[in-house]
Amino acid sequence: MTVKPEILKITNTAKSRLFNVEEIELRFSNGAERTYERLANRGHGAVMIIPITENGDVLLIREYAVGIEDYTLTLPKGLIDPGEDEHTAADRELKEEAGFGSNRLHTLKVMTSAPNYMGHAVTAVVAQDLYPCRLEGDEPEEMEVVRWPLDKLEQLVADPDFTEARAIAALYMVKDFLAKQSSKSD
Amino acid sequence: MTVKPEILKITNTAKSRLFNVEEIELRFSNGAERTYERLANRGHGAVMIIPITENGDVLLIREYAVGIEDYTLTLPKGLIDPGEDEHTAADRELKEEAGFGSNRLHTLKVMTSAPNYMGHAVTAVVAQDLYPCRLEGDEPEEMEVVRWPLDKLEQLVADPDFTEARAIAALYMVKDFLAKQSSKSD
Repeated sequence: MTVKPEILKITNTAKSRLFNVEEIELRFSNGAERTYERLANRGHGAVMIIPITENGDVLLIREYAVGIEDYTLTLPKGLIDPGEDEHTAADRELKEEAGFGSNRLHTLKVMTSAPNYMGHAVTAVVAQDLYPCRLEGDEPEEMEVVRWPLDKLEQLVADPDFTEARAIAALYMVKDFLAKQSSKSD
Repeated sequence: MTVKPEILKITNTAKSRLFNVEEIELRFSNGAERTYERLANRGHGAVMIIPITENGDVLLIREYAVGIEDYTLTLPKGLIDPGEDEHTAADRELKEEAGFGSNRLHTLKVMTSAPNYMGHAVTAVVAQDLYPCRLEGDEPEEMEVVRWPLDKLEQLVADPDFTEARAIAALYMVKDFLAKQSSKSD
């Protein structure tokens, strides 16, 4: 059993509208002391949705990502609103970003993005039994929906427009999930 | 061809030792305007190393992640130092964090973590032909190295101590890479 470092002090060092930076002084169990910075958690978590069509294609979206100043292929995702559970949030974001609702949602995995400097987690939710339904969100423009056959996942992973680690991980996990689901129904 | 939004203005809104927050005013091609925040890029990028032993196991590390205030299973990783290329940085981090060097490095993929609010990218590098070699890094304590058979990847992905999306993505990609490598050598 590893003994966790002792947190000696937490200080807020910078704050903007979205981000809150904390400085943390730690003492490790061997006596070593370090001061780290991290982004403080906010909100109620986030969901990433893997929408799967009847014939086993995944619905990707192409959206503008200001961090890389370019359009990128990824999966629908968004913050969980106060009072929502993960599946309600997943269904709402899917309607806002891809124009589909889902009658069959299943949680795959809670993933972190960069646990060394932020606590942010996203829950990967597979969405099946889809039906057309669009909700107005706060998106500045309608997102392009790109249908991709899951048996061509390797080509997608090789595409330089598809880089988001959480989406890569989610699609591989969904392949395992669907293989298990189909072996159960055989 | 999608026309990128026009960047109207970039303002620095908060700054700490590690983080630099920018506010960006954008006008999308349909005329919609939005103001977003993002973390500015810094440094020379980062590498994540997937060390593969002779018999096909992966070497994971268990390290303390202050963002989640807990120990986590992940892959060795770190920032690229000025003047280093990706493979030099990968080999150095592998020596510092896992106590191994590699004679055979191959770049798998450049991954982003959260392109909607940061540009940070990490290059996944597979390391083979390993030999014991430890370099002193700036780690506060020696990291535990955990050997995991890649054919039990599904059990690892189900482990709540293994959450980092970039590491999940990297291990699935390395499985594809090794399958191709072994089919070539047959």
